[in-house]
Amino acid sequence: MSFELKTHLEEIISLTDQEFEHIAAHFKSKNLKKHQYLIQEDEFVHNIYFVVKGLLKAAFTDANGKEYIIQFAMENWWLSDFRAFYGNVKSITNISCLENSELLYISKENLDKLCQESHKMEHFFRVKGNFGYVALQQRILSLLSTSPKERFEQLALQYPQLMQRVSKTILAAYLGISRETLSRLAAKV
Amino acid sequence: MSFELKTHLEEIISLTDQEFEHIAAHFKSKNLKKHQYLIQEDEFVHNIYFVVKGLLKAAFTDANGKEYIIQFAMENWWLSDFRAFYGNVKSITNISCLENSELLYISKENLDKLCQESHKMEHFFRVKGNFGYVALQQRILSLLSTSPKERFEQLALQYPQLMQRVSKTILAAYLGISRETLSRLAAKV
Repeated sequence: MSFELKTHLEEIISLTDQEFEHIAAHFKSKNLKKHQYLIQEDEFVHNIYFVVKGLLKAAFTDANGKEYIIQFAMENWWLSDFRAFYGNVKSITNISCLENSELLYISKENLDKLCQESHKMEHFFRVKGNFGYVALQQRILSLLSTSPKERFEQLALQYPQLMQRVSKTILAAYLGISRETLSRLAAKV
Repeated sequence: MSFELKTHLEEIISLTDQEFEHIAAHFKSKNLKKHQYLIQEDEFVHNIYFVVKGLLKAAFTDANGKEYIIQFAMENWWLSDFRAFYGNVKSITNISCLENSELLYISKENLDKLCQESHKMEHFFRVKGNFGYVALQQRILSLLSTSPKERFEQLALQYPQLMQRVSKTILAAYLGISRETLSRLAAKV
């Protein structure tokens, strides 16, 4: 199955070919085109997704139609409406493709089964979850304590690839600033 | 050892007395008085902490001396500078007690050992980490998309106990609003 998934898992755990085959058998693949939706608001969410190739955004739209970006996901990132997935509640986000995307996905049932059968996989997802937690704490700190200018510069430094692949309107919705402010900042770089 | 820790673990995993004794042997206890520091900026962080009793805050102070609250922790919450703990880098936060606090703590070495020996504990921390991740995503969404008034009301609804135990100045630093705005909002409730 996916060479990319194997490489990704082996950043944290070591696997024999046989072990990886067993793991991979719990995943399915899905291809979507740019603008297609992976998850829509008000749906139950049964899977988490690993991005083999492409770029997606998870966004929340408020009552006035204004969009806020909760998460991007590109190659080797995991994505879902995690609140809906883990909490067995309906999604409040729309997840859609900013580029044609190749995904692998695993259901809640298979994820739990795999983590129960394989201590290594439970370890992988614990460690991965810790990294994710730290990244979100840093984003919270950034939202609380930095100016739009600093936030823009941090993002450019941390994810230069993202800056090239995402439109300014969408970047602004991620940074929590207006499109106009972002254009002013981008012009200075 | 701690009845509170056992009850807390058993919300996610089931343990025999013998299993719990083995787990508890990897923890140590620490008592701090109000205003004392648990972690200071620019230190390496070797432990994560479980709050048996008390209330603490993890805060970042910017170059101008302004404080931003990253996290509170009260009974049954886990706390550390997770970025420093998992990344083996120096802390950028100060963690201090808002009340006299009783803590249990486990070192990185013992946490890894315990998770390796005990699949149940690895599972516990994976699931706990997932809950934490979802809570942080909700806080990011709240910071991006809600007004100070809505943020205040969400917090009052979600953690009524916290509102009683924390000063307005500190609540404002958590919500990312000014002390004056908070007072105005609190007066209306």
